[in-house]
Amino acid sequence: MTGVARADVEKAADRMAPHVLRTPVAQVAPHLALKLEGMQHAGSFKARGAFNTIVAARDGGTIPGGGVIAASGGNHGLAVAYAARALGVPAEIFVPEVCSPVKIEGLRALGARVTKAGAIYSEAYEASRKRAAETGALEIHAYDQVDVVAGQGTLALELLEQAEFDTVLVAVGGGGLVAGTVAGLDGRAAVVAVEPERIPTLHAALAAGGPVPVDVSGVAADALGASRIGAIAYETVAGRVSSVLVTDDAIVEARLAMWRDHRVAAEHAGAAALAALQSGAYVPAEGERVVAVVCGSNTDPTTLAG
Amino acid sequence: MTGVARADVEKAADRMAPHVLRTPVAQVAPHLALKLEGMQHAGSFKARGAFNTIVAARDGGTIPGGGVIAASGGNHGLAVAYAARALGVPAEIFVPEVCSPVKIEGLRALGARVTKAGAIYSEAYEASRKRAAETGALEIHAYDQVDVVAGQGTLALELLEQAEFDTVLVAVGGGGLVAGTVAGLDGRAAVVAVEPERIPTLHAALAAGGPVPVDVSGVAADALGASRIGAIAYETVAGRVSSVLVTDDAIVEARLAMWRDHRVAAEHAGAAALAALQSGAYVPAEGERVVAVVCGSNTDPTTLAG
Ligand SMILES: Cc1ncc(COP(=O)(O)O)c(C=O)c1O
Ligand SMILES: Cc1ncc(COP(=O)(O)O)c(C=O)c1O
Repeated sequence: MTGVARADVEKAADRMAPHVLRTPVAQVAPHLALKLEGMQHAGSFKARGAFNTIVAARDGGTIPGGGVIAASGGNHGLAVAYAARALGVPAEIFVPEVCSPVKIEGLRALGARVTKAGAIYSEAYEASRKRAAETGALEIHAYDQVDVVAGQGTLALELLEQAEFDTVLVAVGGGGLVAGTVAGLDGRAAVVAVEPERIPTLHAALAAGGPVPVDVSGVAADALGASRIGAIAYETVAGRVSSVLVTDDAIVEARLAMWRDHRVAAEHAGAAALAALQSGAYVPAEGERVVAVVCGSNTDPTTLAG
Repeated sequence: MTGVARADVEKAADRMAPHVLRTPVAQVAPHLALKLEGMQHAGSFKARGAFNTIVAARDGGTIPGGGVIAASGGNHGLAVAYAARALGVPAEIFVPEVCSPVKIEGLRALGARVTKAGAIYSEAYEASRKRAAETGALEIHAYDQVDVVAGQGTLALELLEQAEFDTVLVAVGGGGLVAGTVAGLDGRAAVVAVEPERIPTLHAALAAGGPVPVDVSGVAADALGASRIGAIAYETVAGRVSSVLVTDDAIVEARLAMWRDHRVAAEHAGAAALAALQSGAYVPAEGERVVAVVCGSNTDPTTLAG
């Protein structure tokens, strides 16, 4: 397995330009900007990987009649459903039995066929693989797939055009976003990978010298709750990022502060990067210009004011 | 009484640069951008006029010991309190007796002295004038003051640097924002003044050939509820804007759509400009590039999803 390179990200950007939004950057303090990726289609950066994967397959003439298939009750599922609908391709999304009716409704509203399978995510995922093997549908993994990672990386290319910065902070689940960011920046700025203490997929992998399983819990588990870092992500980022951990309390506080001070709506995963700064988990040098990526906004607004 | 000129706005921009945020612009469709001014300090463009007025007085050496004084239970009061605190100047804000405890708390949290006076806004305003006459405090009017209008206009100068556009849509209450925008653009783009049907201050004035009183009601009355257009605003904009009216229903819908589709939190006044487009009250020509100003975000997040 090899990592993703800048050229992959550049190709993704060309391919996807008409389909994704160029999300704004808000300079909220002299040395701090927020990349407002929660304004992306379907509410998170996941639309980038989804569009890139489907458009690449379409351009290559390899989208099967069965359409696309993914396993996710969260942002990845929403993004795949959104992109598939926009591109006129059928989508089937596998979710665990416990998936909330609200989320299932959200997927259906985007035109996806929703299939419940298994008690936990990994079982839904296995069921999706089986179905794909039967129907020949194009599988779209939540993070461990080159086109997905390259798509996420287009956020970094955009950022280079929008702002001057030394360092970007990004949240890590399975690692697609951080790997795409590292590939896209390719040394033009530093990358700080931010994880909840209670889901240290990358942190544990860096300590162990390779992907290892971790326990998953805490406020951001719905979006950052991968149980190990993706192989592609690990290959792409090992040795090229610093890795910091934040507490759940810091994430909760950063999310509320973002609403209170800037009227930015973030889900918990979307507040992790800022939490690293506000809690002091990452301390920039004097004059260091930092961007925190607000990577998702799929949150219940009634909880924004605490 | 004369209007405000571009030179006034340029002076304001120089003066205020260190104090206000350059709020982001989000391109949400090929010909539609949102100016996210709800991310401004204190949640609305009103911070611009407040900072400009206080800094101009300070630079001129004319800030009295009594500090600054304003009448407003809404965004203007919050903005004056915010700017005064940032500049180390005492602020007294007059509010009507009926002002909600939440709003009073918000003003106090910003360090302002809050004084209740009168059953309605105009009585609070008269009381504030009386106090200013006694103490010599610097009065900051919500819209009918040259430095206030010029400050609001800095939004337009910013926008010219951030986006290419043909037309900007702005909400009108007493007219400070629209007048500043007209002065700042000074012909570089068209301005559409948007008002709720139930508070047509500018629309009625244009029909009558001068400011006239109107009845005030509806969902946006807390922010757009001036009972007549300001004299400075009228002088500045008459003959230089088109004027459209929107229903309360259109405002409510646009506000919910902004949250649903873009995760932008707007108060009702902040959704009026977009409502003009979405309802068809203003129909752009083919290819016309439009910016809707989202001018305020001081809203209860529990109501964002309807
Ligand atoms: C909002 C948000 N942030 C971050 C992540 C983590 O992304 P990745 O798995 O690419 O590390 C996710 C994954 O679903 C997400 O939805
Ligand atoms: C959010 C918002 N929009 C628009 C207005 C109207 O501004 P103006 O009185 O300058 O027309 C106000 C006034 O308070 C406001 O708070």
